[in-house]
Amino acid sequence: MKKAPFWFLLFLLASCGDSTTKQTTPDMKGKYAIAIHGGAGNLVKMNLTNEEQEAYKTALDSALTEGSKILANGGTSVDAVEATIRILEDCPLFNAGKGAVFTHDGHNELDAAIMNGENLECGAIAGVRHIKNPISLARRVMEKSEFILLQSEGAEEFAREQGIEWVDTSYFFTQHRWDQLQEAIEDDKTELDHSGKKKASTLSKPREEKFGTVGCVALDVHGNIAAGTSTGGLTNKRYGRVGDTPIIGSGTYADNTTCAVSCTGKGEDFIRLNVAHDIASMIRYAQVDLQSACDSVVMKKLKDIKGRGGCIAIDCVGNIAMPFTTTGMFRGSIDVNGEKKIALYEEK
Amino acid sequence: MKKAPFWFLLFLLASCGDSTTKQTTPDMKGKYAIAIHGGAGNLVKMNLTNEEQEAYKTALDSALTEGSKILANGGTSVDAVEATIRILEDCPLFNAGKGAVFTHDGHNELDAAIMNGENLECGAIAGVRHIKNPISLARRVMEKSEFILLQSEGAEEFAREQGIEWVDTSYFFTQHRWDQLQEAIEDDKTELDHSGKKKASTLSKPREEKFGTVGCVALDVHGNIAAGTSTGGLTNKRYGRVGDTPIIGSGTYADNTTCAVSCTGKGEDFIRLNVAHDIASMIRYAQVDLQSACDSVVMKKLKDIKGRGGCIAIDCVGNIAMPFTTTGMFRGSIDVNGEKKIALYEEK
Repeated sequence: MKKAPFWFLLFLLASCGDSTTKQTTPDMKGKYAIAIHGGAGNLVKMNLTNEEQEAYKTALDSALTEGSKILANGGTSVDAVEATIRILEDCPLFNAGKGAVFTHDGHNELDAAIMNGENLECGAIAGVRHIKNPISLARRVMEKSEFILLQSEGAEEFAREQGIEWVDTSYFFTQHRWDQLQEAIEDDKTELDHSGKKKASTLSKPREEKFGTVGCVALDVHGNIAAGTSTGGLTNKRYGRVGDTPIIGSGTYADNTTCAVSCTGKGEDFIRLNVAHDIASMIRYAQVDLQSACDSVVMKKLKDIKGRGGCIAIDCVGNIAMPFTTTGMFRGSIDVNGEKKIALYEEK
Repeated sequence: MKKAPFWFLLFLLASCGDSTTKQTTPDMKGKYAIAIHGGAGNLVKMNLTNEEQEAYKTALDSALTEGSKILANGGTSVDAVEATIRILEDCPLFNAGKGAVFTHDGHNELDAAIMNGENLECGAIAGVRHIKNPISLARRVMEKSEFILLQSEGAEEFAREQGIEWVDTSYFFTQHRWDQLQEAIEDDKTELDHSGKKKASTLSKPREEKFGTVGCVALDVHGNIAAGTSTGGLTNKRYGRVGDTPIIGSGTYADNTTCAVSCTGKGEDFIRLNVAHDIASMIRYAQVDLQSACDSVVMKKLKDIKGRGGCIAIDCVGNIAMPFTTTGMFRGSIDVNGEKKIALYEEK
């Protein structure tokens, strides 16, 4: 391949200067923004009652409110991301923390990651079974460990030493998820968070699949962005499978000079394409804007390999993108003008 | 940030067509190339006797010869990568397979990954203790599992089911590595593969650090590239630490449309920068050649964060790059013209 011509390097240089300037433009002073997801999937509207839809929206709203309060008070994007995700982890509606799905062997194995766009520091954990809030353990790894990714019992040993909140495995039991596992085992399939299946068979409603991973991206008033993601993975997963959530660059990524991204979906598709880092790379090297990069990577490349899922992304000037290839993604955002948006399905 | 102007999109489009054409140019017919590494580090020449240097070179040569034989006979790049890495894993000189370093708790925990640039298929394993050739297990994950990354006992359960060669943990014991662990524990430090330390203290030779990870990238006569990496990680590592090796996009990556990359070094630096995928992204989006992309990511970005290590990279027209920020990287290559090169230290 040929070297970049001189005019192209000039163009890159000019554009870099441009983007740096934007981060410090006075009109960003005191401004913040936040976006969250509670998973994507081929959601079928009629499978959720109005009450159920309201319950999801209320949970998303509480998390958003908590995160934006922190940002409004001058808290960091890392603080906001952690606090927001903790609320979603504590809510049994989502496949993370308390609502995590079961593995084939009847365990709950949790993955999480967090990344600070200011300095590229990051922390991640995979396959933990006793940690109430995996996102907080990921943050502790980022801040107190020389490592980035810890897995399994080793990660839990670190958690104990650090005094991270520890729970009995029974904490993660929910009847709903247990029933999902039995169905998945019957089908001999690794299943996504397919909350609608039982309804589909018993009430003749269409089958749906849902990836209940949770995530948050935020821009703080100091001009820094961060991303975090937390998940229970796939129902009936086996062999210590790790998805994209704790893989920096695949399910989670943040860099002030490009964007912060948190993904949800069939993790293997996101790992194969390095979705989060690819979005950032398009912004950096192809000089496209956040929405165009997200559309290109998620709505084109991911779709081309039949990848299912979506992401939330934010940049340092508060642009927010929330693309998904599925029929729905539980999501919410508050933009730099304070405008709040919460949605579950595609918008026509 | 602004959208890409029309002329820039035209430029991208034209260049994409260009690169596709190059892969099928007639003069590549029957051509193949391969590169390997046996780790990088701040190697001090005088710490290795001539005999020891020769032993490393002979081991690298055997691996290269085996890989190139497969490629010459029309074998796939994936076949060549696996076979080459198996030889390096079986050699106690390198920190992978038989020569793996010890964790803090006195175990050997092995990580590996392989990726096929033809179709972006990949497989990886982390933290296994009984697998003689982790690269072969990674390949089996790629070919026989619906997952990409398996860790710990779960990965070993999969290995058993697949009939992958199993060894007692005592297979991995080498006195040399055990002594390194004792030194690292004494120092209370997580150490790289610092084979020279003892010599340094006892013989007043300069201290050196070496990352003995092994890796291979190859281009086959069918025009496809692949990458693989295998490692024992850091001496005295703890908490189920996973480095960059099994992280697709960080330590290992392959895509026919850009390049195949295998990294070695302090894994956390490579994860933070998504080194392998960043090199590929520069080629894709900034339209620079392989060497320029490697120089920019490894010799500039990685150096800027004081990252230690290097990588080997190849593209579909047989360009090879082997940059490193340390004083040495054990490496070898055979280019499309059959020219062989084996080296341990910086070349002036």
